[in-house]
Amino acid sequence: MVKELTIVKIGGNVINDPDQLISFLRDFSDLEGMKILVHGGGKKATEIADAMGLSPKLTGGRRITDAANLDVVTMVYAGLLNKNIVADLHSFDCNALGLSGADANVIRAHKRIVKEIDYGFAGDIDEVDAKMITTFLNAGLSPVFSAITHDKKGQLLNTNADTIAAELAKAMSGEFKVDLIYCFERAGVLKDVEKDDSIIEEIDRETYAGLVENGIIADGMLPKMKNCYEALEQGVDKVRIGKPELIRDKEIRHTTLKL
Amino acid sequence: MVKELTIVKIGGNVINDPDQLISFLRDFSDLEGMKILVHGGGKKATEIADAMGLSPKLTGGRRITDAANLDVVTMVYAGLLNKNIVADLHSFDCNALGLSGADANVIRAHKRIVKEIDYGFAGDIDEVDAKMITTFLNAGLSPVFSAITHDKKGQLLNTNADTIAAELAKAMSGEFKVDLIYCFERAGVLKDVEKDDSIIEEIDRETYAGLVENGIIADGMLPKMKNCYEALEQGVDKVRIGKPELIRDKEIRHTTLKL
Repeated sequence: MVKELTIVKIGGNVINDPDQLISFLRDFSDLEGMKILVHGGGKKATEIADAMGLSPKLTGGRRITDAANLDVVTMVYAGLLNKNIVADLHSFDCNALGLSGADANVIRAHKRIVKEIDYGFAGDIDEVDAKMITTFLNAGLSPVFSAITHDKKGQLLNTNADTIAAELAKAMSGEFKVDLIYCFERAGVLKDVEKDDSIIEEIDRETYAGLVENGIIADGMLPKMKNCYEALEQGVDKVRIGKPELIRDKEIRHTTLKL
Repeated sequence: MVKELTIVKIGGNVINDPDQLISFLRDFSDLEGMKILVHGGGKKATEIADAMGLSPKLTGGRRITDAANLDVVTMVYAGLLNKNIVADLHSFDCNALGLSGADANVIRAHKRIVKEIDYGFAGDIDEVDAKMITTFLNAGLSPVFSAITHDKKGQLLNTNADTIAAELAKAMSGEFKVDLIYCFERAGVLKDVEKDDSIIEEIDRETYAGLVENGIIADGMLPKMKNCYEALEQGVDKVRIGKPELIRDKEIRHTTLKL
């Protein structure tokens, strides 16, 4: 029998709200079977950077990671947020193991090649060590990934958490039947972003192309959807998008992606 | 045959000097056999706290960890320092796994009981999960511990790195022949702190008592030595104190502790 693995990604908005975060972590702890959590950064990194007098550099909504800001995201993502999430999960008897991609070299990346924009210390993923992650899962652990990777030459890299979740899902689908869930502030892909009940419950390749053409899938949703489809194409069993409550209640309305 | 395990603790002064740190990490990577690194915090936490406008609270040289300063040490120790050390070790082909005590619940502690002084979120260790740490070692990993633990009720705790090293050594000595090495800025226990060549090469229980009485072992060295003796009493094979170079060159002069 193929083993099942649930990979859940939570975004910054869940992390920004302590009550919502705790409620989500309790639900995550209650999930049966093997599981992995991937978390984004939230606004804490910006808060800390502000407190330190660093001005975050953004281009087209994407953070440019200079050396000082890499230190900040390393501190906040891999330290403050990751360790507090891990400690909270243990309070719910979930045997969490906090990881960056550098730990046990589980996610190796390279510094993004400069084309038009120099993103600084941003990482694009080269390799996920599915075997080592399986060792952790078999030891009864639930890995909790922060959005930091490394190049195995001593350089840490800031890496998109959505992409980390998709790359983990792809790599783990060699041995597991992987259920990938993206949790964020909306109930799924919406026809009208103003209306939470306008959920598109199922999207396949054909409807996807139409939604992009009509501008319904745009901006930040584009790379997220690209990650989802790459995951499905490379063997991930199921990809869903919805509110954090989705991991507790499978009946709650959400978006399911299909090839 | 009993397996051997080397546990090395490096102090803040090594971490403060990038060249010395890299040189040390190269030496650590070259150590044969199973090994664990425990690192202190150095002045980086104070720098970050200063940059954030937080005033560190000290009493008798010990940091009082309020909530804001706990966030800072969590960020700096478990995030910035731990992940950079791990990434550097991988560049030397040492398969490092960065851990706080919360990760996989490897070190459970409780908030220090308030007697005369309220140390805030300072942790005193209750339990080390030697079995889980052995699982990591058997997977070919070298655990790298930052000085953060948790109470398994969701609370992170700031914990003395010397004590973590001693508690790890004690717990692991059930299954391993443990060699515990404390590396710091001095060549060992010195008869005259001004003279680096006044090393006391061997200290046993009897000479130890005399050195405390004469005030040669005083201040910060007292808790360090207490940790060392507790470790020896509880089955740790060998305890040495010296400069970071000691892990590369066993012939370099240093202090060996005996019962």
